[in-house]
Amino acid sequence: MKPPTIAVVLLSLFGAAAGLFGAAAGAQTPATAVKEDFKPSTLNQPGQEYPQVNSQRHARFRIVAPQAQSVSVSLGGREGTPLRKGEDGAWTGTTAAPLDEGFHYYRLSVDGGTFNDPGALHFYGSTRWESGIEVPAGDQDFYALKDVPHGRVEQVLFPSKSTGTVRRAFVYTPPGYDRDPSARYPVLYLQHGWGEDETAWSNQGRAHLIMDNLIAAGNTRPFLIVMTYGMTNDARIGGLAKFDVGPFRTVLLNELIPYVDAHFRTLPDAAHRAMAGLSMGGMETRWITLEHLDTFSHIGLFSGGSISPADMKAAPGFREKVKLVFVGYGSRELGAPRAGAPAGFGGDPRADAEALAKAGIRSVFYVSPDTAHEFQSWRRCLREFAPLLFRE
Amino acid sequence: MKPPTIAVVLLSLFGAAAGLFGAAAGAQTPATAVKEDFKPSTLNQPGQEYPQVNSQRHARFRIVAPQAQSVSVSLGGREGTPLRKGEDGAWTGTTAAPLDEGFHYYRLSVDGGTFNDPGALHFYGSTRWESGIEVPAGDQDFYALKDVPHGRVEQVLFPSKSTGTVRRAFVYTPPGYDRDPSARYPVLYLQHGWGEDETAWSNQGRAHLIMDNLIAAGNTRPFLIVMTYGMTNDARIGGLAKFDVGPFRTVLLNELIPYVDAHFRTLPDAAHRAMAGLSMGGMETRWITLEHLDTFSHIGLFSGGSISPADMKAAPGFREKVKLVFVGYGSRELGAPRAGAPAGFGGDPRADAEALAKAGIRSVFYVSPDTAHEFQSWRRCLREFAPLLFRE
Repeated sequence: MKPPTIAVVLLSLFGAAAGLFGAAAGAQTPATAVKEDFKPSTLNQPGQEYPQVNSQRHARFRIVAPQAQSVSVSLGGREGTPLRKGEDGAWTGTTAAPLDEGFHYYRLSVDGGTFNDPGALHFYGSTRWESGIEVPAGDQDFYALKDVPHGRVEQVLFPSKSTGTVRRAFVYTPPGYDRDPSARYPVLYLQHGWGEDETAWSNQGRAHLIMDNLIAAGNTRPFLIVMTYGMTNDARIGGLAKFDVGPFRTVLLNELIPYVDAHFRTLPDAAHRAMAGLSMGGMETRWITLEHLDTFSHIGLFSGGSISPADMKAAPGFREKVKLVFVGYGSRELGAPRAGAPAGFGGDPRADAEALAKAGIRSVFYVSPDTAHEFQSWRRCLREFAPLLFRE
Repeated sequence: MKPPTIAVVLLSLFGAAAGLFGAAAGAQTPATAVKEDFKPSTLNQPGQEYPQVNSQRHARFRIVAPQAQSVSVSLGGREGTPLRKGEDGAWTGTTAAPLDEGFHYYRLSVDGGTFNDPGALHFYGSTRWESGIEVPAGDQDFYALKDVPHGRVEQVLFPSKSTGTVRRAFVYTPPGYDRDPSARYPVLYLQHGWGEDETAWSNQGRAHLIMDNLIAAGNTRPFLIVMTYGMTNDARIGGLAKFDVGPFRTVLLNELIPYVDAHFRTLPDAAHRAMAGLSMGGMETRWITLEHLDTFSHIGLFSGGSISPADMKAAPGFREKVKLVFVGYGSRELGAPRAGAPAGFGGDPRADAEALAKAGIRSVFYVSPDTAHEFQSWRRCLREFAPLLFRE
């Protein structure tokens, strides 16, 4: 079930990769005095002072490369932040505009080569391990590491006959999972985006901390989250039109779900199984769930398309089987000032959500304030989505 | 219980950090023709062709930085491999000497700055995320990812009152742990070395795969492995004399062990509890176990000192309580040609092991062939150590 909007999708994903949904969306802010209250990013390597972020959400970088000819930072796909060499041989620079709140990928250009910032931790995105920086957000408490009961993130290696490989998945098990050996749990299958992998939802998304905090506050039913590689990265720019969800669908439906149901205490039926994904992972979710409504009853698309009344009609049993359709976007993806304008995956997601609701489907449309096609939008999508799941 | 050999220890760890136990230990090999059968390292980022290794264990690097003035590779602490710029703007070079088998950390110097190779995966060592390269070993099958039943590596976040933090540990649970809710398991607490952290034994050491393979072959009793941060990295060069094992000991004994015993199905007694560590982690193991023989009965020191008859006499109940003392080293650490010569942690570990055996202690001394103070020695130590544990 390929969507009719594939051409739009291609352009949109190209935009995401090239950073047209960039992080430096506050360019409208005039270049006023930069406050000198910079603090190290919380995603720095242990003991590293740089990169830093100030209270205005400007980032400052410092790279030691005394004999280099040019050093710049590429963040969010804008023209980049050029760094200037000081007398100590270190290159420093500050972003001209404030960054959006939340997590951003970035990379260095050093004399024409692409490298990571040795001060920052690494995160897999754009088919490479990138540098990451975290801009403190007003609502960061919901994904903070707090003194609450914590679940686990369990790395499992499962056999895959269809690919002839042993494959990796991460399984979040909620606090208390180890306590009652008779308790069984619903499961959310949660997919990363293009260029990312199965590490993204924990490392960048902090999905486990979001769940720990929601559960501690009594705001969601405890459930498992399964994260595996969506095999999207062979579909490079220009080749996405040929992307075939088939091999991943086979791994997911025929291998991973049976493995999880055999090795974890799940409630192994459609009523207790959800699928969601971000960007390309949202497209995969849409393609797979609409064809497998006997497997999944709850659907989440985070910056990754929507489900239209036409989709609903084309999927037999949709009205009876689907318990939730959640569609979320960052506000900067939707285009201002027309808040309901088409986002990057074709159609009008808000209009689709409203049409589904009118047709009697439990349909939720969420807009993350002041964020783009980035992880802060998706952290918030998960926060909004999780409490809606598996209500009986 | 600080060892009397602290001065020697300091020199040795400095050596390890500065790479005097370097990887390029085959420097005696004359620079004969280099075979052009290079293949990408198995630790490269997805789709990356470089770095590469050939059948003679030479490594070749290729770094794109067209405007750079100088690019070199530092691996194993030798003077480094200078790269030369080709007409395509890429810098390439091949190690002059073969590398030892197994895993090596390395880093780039680009115009005087320290960066990672964008082709390689990252591994935490020397208090930074370093580049890693894997040289195929004749015995690599024992840590290969194979089609056998796999255990899990579970990330747990546990509360620590003594440090006022929520701390991370990884817990390996063997295949079948999820199946029988009445089965209980012994536990090995396994520590990383100076400059590393709780990710090292999985990422660099492949401890989970070593265990999966040993268990599949029926060569070890299944047990849990718990890996947490040894808090060794605040003790920088020059400050190691002031290193205090106390805070880590408190976390381990008062917080982590009770947490693991409460949340995993362990056999929570000394007979079923082991501790081992590599390098600095071996020193921690020695200090902690000798003072807590009611907590640990099996001791493993991997390139991290030994236990002498004097130590034995100073530890009340040693003879009755200690079920195994395992001491391992890489052969290149022991000094040729005197295979039993003192290694870098003072004393003569082989003589100590023999003396303990004569005194009736179950004492095992292992030498990893043709390896240095690096992870290939410690992978092999774990392979040799695990089958000796918890035999009743």
